[in-house]
Formats: sequence, C-alpha cells, structure tokens
Amino acid sequence: MKLLEEKILKDGRILPGGVLKVDSFLNHQIDTELVSACGEEWYRIFKDAGITKIMTIESSGIGIACLVAQHFKVPVLFAKKSRAINISNEFYTARVVSYTHGHEYDVIASKKFLSKDDRVLIVDDFLANGSAMKALISLCKQSGAEIVGCGAAVEKVYQGGGNEIRAMGYRVESLARISSMTDVSIEFC
Amino acid sequence: MKLLEEKILKDGRILPGGVLKVDSFLNHQIDTELVSACGEEWYRIFKDAGITKIMTIESSGIGIACLVAQHFKVPVLFAKKSRAINISNEFYTARVVSYTHGHEYDVIASKKFLSKDDRVLIVDDFLANGSAMKALISLCKQSGAEIVGCGAAVEKVYQGGGNEIRAMGYRVESLARISSMTDVSIEFC
Repeated sequence: MKLLEEKILKDGRILPGGVLKVDSFLNHQIDTELVSACGEEWYRIFKDAGITKIMTIESSGIGIACLVAQHFKVPVLFAKKSRAINISNEFYTARVVSYTHGHEYDVIASKKFLSKDDRVLIVDDFLANGSAMKALISLCKQSGAEIVGCGAAVEKVYQGGGNEIRAMGYRVESLARISSMTDVSIEFC
Repeated sequence: MKLLEEKILKDGRILPGGVLKVDSFLNHQIDTELVSACGEEWYRIFKDAGITKIMTIESSGIGIACLVAQHFKVPVLFAKKSRAINISNEFYTARVVSYTHGHEYDVIASKKFLSKDDRVLIVDDFLANGSAMKALISLCKQSGAEIVGCGAAVEKVYQGGGNEIRAMGYRVESLARISSMTDVSIEFC
C-alpha cells in the first residue's frame, strides 16, 4: 500500500538494533485518516469473505482494529494481557513471547465473544517474528472460529513470522512489507 | 446519551464489589457502531471548539479515542504505561493510582506529539475516581496544551472523580452518568 510505505519512509525512524519507530502515526500518536485508509484496503481485499469479527491484541493493535472494523461494520475483539496466575475457564488463553521487550506473557479472550460461528480477520500494527499473531491464531482455533485472514500494517518480512504463518496455511495480507532495513534505509517487497 | 444507557442496562453486568462489566461492547469486545455513535455525540458537543487532538490512556481508551477522532478528523495520542525505571526527558510523565487493580504506575506521552498549540479532548471508557483522567490532564498541562474538555463513555458519578475534575475548572461531558448502582440495578443522572 503506497500511502503507508510513503508515510514510513517520510516519518518512520530507524533506531539502533533494527527497531523501526512509527510512533508518530501508528502506535503512540495515531494518524486516524491513514489508519482508516489501511482499513479500506483490507476491506477491499476481504469484503466478500463474510468477516464477522476483527481480532487484535492489546495494546497497539486496538486502534487499528477499530478503524478497520468500521469498514466491515463488525465488532472488534482484542485479546487482553492477563495478570492472573490462574486463568479461569471462561477464557481462551495463549502465550506470547515478546522479543522486543524480552519477556513472555499470556493473553486471553472471553469464550463468550468468540465461537465456531465467527469468521475472523486478525490485524495488528507489526508482524515480525509472529509471536503475537500466532497467539491470536491459537485463540481463534481454540474457539473453532474460522480464520479468514491475517494482516499487519507493517510486516518485517526478513524476520520470518509472516512467512511461517503463510506456511501454516493462513492468508496473510500485510500492507507495507519490508524486505530489508539498514540503519539508514528501508526496502519494501 | 440514551443509546449508551440502554446498552448498559441491556448488556452490562454488575459483579460483586460494585464492578460494572461492559466487556461485551466497550473494553474487550468493542461495538464499533455504538462507540462511533458516542464519537458523534462528543463531536456534536465539541465541534466548534477547534480540537486538534484526542487524547486517551492505554489500553481500553484507545479504541474509543480512534472512533471519536474519526469525527473530528484529528490524530489520537494515547498515554503509554511506562515500564522504564528512568524515564527519559523526551516524555511528559504522570502517575496513575489504579483502585481497580490495586497498584500505581506511570504513564508517558512524547513531548514531540503534544504542545502548547494543541487543543485537546480527553476521552476514556470509564471515569470513577478520576485517577487516569487526572494523569492525562497533568500530561497536557506539562505540555502547555489547552484542555478543551474531558469525557468518559461511562461516569460513575458517585465515585466523585468527575466532579473533582469539574471543580478543577474543566468541562467534563460523560455520555452515561451513573448516579447509583446496587447489585441488581443501575440509576442514571
């Protein structure tokens, strides 16, 4: 998606260690017009797929998911980080390994809000190693919901998560796909 | 706002200890059409106030803020929970005391995204004791931004936070104002 790629080149910042900061428009400050345009693009791709729910993960996926859901006119469900040691059986649960922050945590989704009747589009801000998205896939699978597709605004293709998920048989439609990044440049697929 | 009050009466659940669960439409699953209607209502109230930014706090305010911001055609800025012990001077910082979860934490907002030129509408899902909203007010004040108004989707008026913020001189426009709640009933102002 040209608009998003141009925004990344213009306003993204590369920090040491291969970190791409997009906090001016995606995950601290949110450019709602740009993100809604992302939603429009996913709607163009998935509009005939009978999507019943947009799913994402706390925190930085929530804004994106809501602006995407507006186009589909369906609810959002965001998986919550769990603080509880014992998770009640009212929830589906999955583990996320965060390489960025160097820790693991569980996410939960209420069984009330996800069932085998759902057809889910999973979205997030970033897809790198894919741990968060795999956790979302796991929550959907536990519920029996059909995963129609997955997508991140920004996929770091060279980190492999997206292609692992494609190899698992899921359709992954990310909007800006970065093939390589140095300290001074970004290349898109 | 009648639509939201009716939804609370229909789908809200009262848990022991005075907890109102609205996780089926506001802060786990999100009814994006309802929340966008909340945005429309705030837009009706504040449309001539020259709002430049919608501000909220991680996590459950983010979806609401994005759907509100669509009506104003301005960006969202969400204050992030800080994990760092030493917060760099690139950020404004404020402390939140969470009575619900029984702990304190710091929230931060980048100085790059909030300045004296901003006219801010602060929104959140809940306003009870007001700690989160006061932290957002503090971040705005540190930046010199003008706080045009504050509002929660649901204000528990009897917990006093909203009226404390009104007494500080700010305009608070919440959309469903609960005057009292028992284990079986909810009364609105």
